Amino acid sequence: MTSAEKWTDGVDGVLLDMTGVLCESGQSNAIKGSVDAVKRLKEAGLPVRFCTNETTYTSQALVEKMKGFGFDIKPEEVFSPIPAMCQVLKERELHPHLLVHPNALADFSDVSTENPNCVVLGDAVDEYSYDNLNKAFQVLISLNKPSLFSLGKGRYYKDGEDLVLDVGSFCSALEYACDIKAEVVGKPSAIFFNTAVKDMGLSADKVVMVGDDIVSDVGGALSTGMKGVLVRSGKYRTTDENHPKVKPSAIVNDLSEAVDILLKSRKPNWDGLAELA
Amino acid sequence: MTSAEKWTDGVDGVLLDMTGVLCESGQSNAIKGSVDAVKRLKEAGLPVRFCTNETTYTSQALVEKMKGFGFDIKPEEVFSPIPAMCQVLKERELHPHLLVHPNALADFSDVSTENPNCVVLGDAVDEYSYDNLNKAFQVLISLNKPSLFSLGKGRYYKDGEDLVLDVGSFCSALEYACDIKAEVVGKPSAIFFNTAVKDMGLSADKVVMVGDDIVSDVGGALSTGMKGVLVRSGKYRTTDENHPKVKPSAIVNDLSEAVDILLKSRKPNWDGLAELA
Repeated sequence: MTSAEKWTDGVDGVLLDMTGVLCESGQSNAIKGSVDAVKRLKEAGLPVRFCTNETTYTSQALVEKMKGFGFDIKPEEVFSPIPAMCQVLKERELHPHLLVHPNALADFSDVSTENPNCVVLGDAVDEYSYDNLNKAFQVLISLNKPSLFSLGKGRYYKDGEDLVLDVGSFCSALEYACDIKAEVVGKPSAIFFNTAVKDMGLSADKVVMVGDDIVSDVGGALSTGMKGVLVRSGKYRTTDENHPKVKPSAIVNDLSEAVDILLKSRKPNWDGLAELA
Repeated sequence: MTSAEKWTDGVDGVLLDMTGVLCESGQSNAIKGSVDAVKRLKEAGLPVRFCTNETTYTSQALVEKMKGFGFDIKPEEVFSPIPAMCQVLKERELHPHLLVHPNALADFSDVSTENPNCVVLGDAVDEYSYDNLNKAFQVLISLNKPSLFSLGKGRYYKDGEDLVLDVGSFCSALEYACDIKAEVVGKPSAIFFNTAVKDMGLSADKVVMVGDDIVSDVGGALSTGMKGVLVRSGKYRTTDENHPKVKPSAIVNDLSEAVDILLKSRKPNWDGLAELA
């Protein structure tokens, strides 16, 4: 993007992070203006998809929760790591040792976990005990070629008032212990982002991703060829604005402001047309 | 070391790792031959120091434990991370948040932990809970310039029959979460090794380090300019023999064999002298 260009130029589709953009983690209602913002995008005819690394709910429970907050959201519009992970396990005939949130286990019900030959790590929250981390490590170190999958690579997120460690941090612990690199399924993987982009019938350069994670959402979007807009909600911290590696296409207060700017840019400029006449 | 040289050439002092070389973690006696091996080194007039990353005992308790196993060992011969860490905290006027083993707390009794402005991470074992890791993370992320110290950087160690995660793995989790690099106090830090080397009145090239950790002991020793000998006891795994980065000066079955070879190399070769006569 050159300085003369705007982040809204050429945008024909919108990818939205969920937690931190639509709602705050641990809160029981939507972020102000976000329900209306999603509605306005859809009414304007822009395709919208939801791209989340949430793995502490089943896909179904996540959609129900968002509907409960008032969002116009359909299960087929949501892209989350677990279905993508199950697809990979099936294709490669892998049996995982699962270190995931108890709520997520139902989404793995079709997967055999006997004689595990890989480890799948999700946001396990309280299940990240010393014992459980050791068990996952022991599976990995017993394999000739340890194979670790991480459902996202987030550093931390906001839980109520607190910042807490996310899956990426625990993934780093196991990567270091076994001297390996995990395969990330979820954001910021370009493969994962592109699944949602293609579902809109667009190419990445026509899509903007709006998220609260400077690295996973914004950095991942930019690496995939999308625009990446950072919101000042969710886990946002002022230091994110001067991130040494990731320069967002724009920084806005919240989703509502991002949608205001985007939709305004798409309206014919009547004043401009009048001047041309 | 060229192919014509032996690892024993020019060695005038010996640094010994403790757990995995003198005894096995979780076992109640010394590794066969190791008590006698230490005795033989000392009787041969070679200075011996013990260099450990053990932080689940106070220094005093560690020495008492080793004496109980029959080792000739004095407190002033043991170099472990906590005294070195306390010295750094004092010099830099830092107040740590401690995530360490409860047994190690007594060694920090002179250190103020009010209004923490850094985090010190030791081998906390069962204290590595999700809550405690989050607390350490929250201290770090609240600081303008997060400062993390790690008492060693080991990947894993052997506890009874199991391999379990060591401090380096949890350190990696916090490093990733905060996008920082920890300062390592303990092995494989050259500063730490050199404290023990200097205490023998030697330079690093005159010293051999014997350990069971291919990276922390052997790799660290080689980087410091010492010889590094790997034992096939403790956490040793056959794959260590083909480590992609670290090539030990020698690999021996245990400390007893290392001492056999070293002391034999120092005896005048009477047969050779006879031939010369």
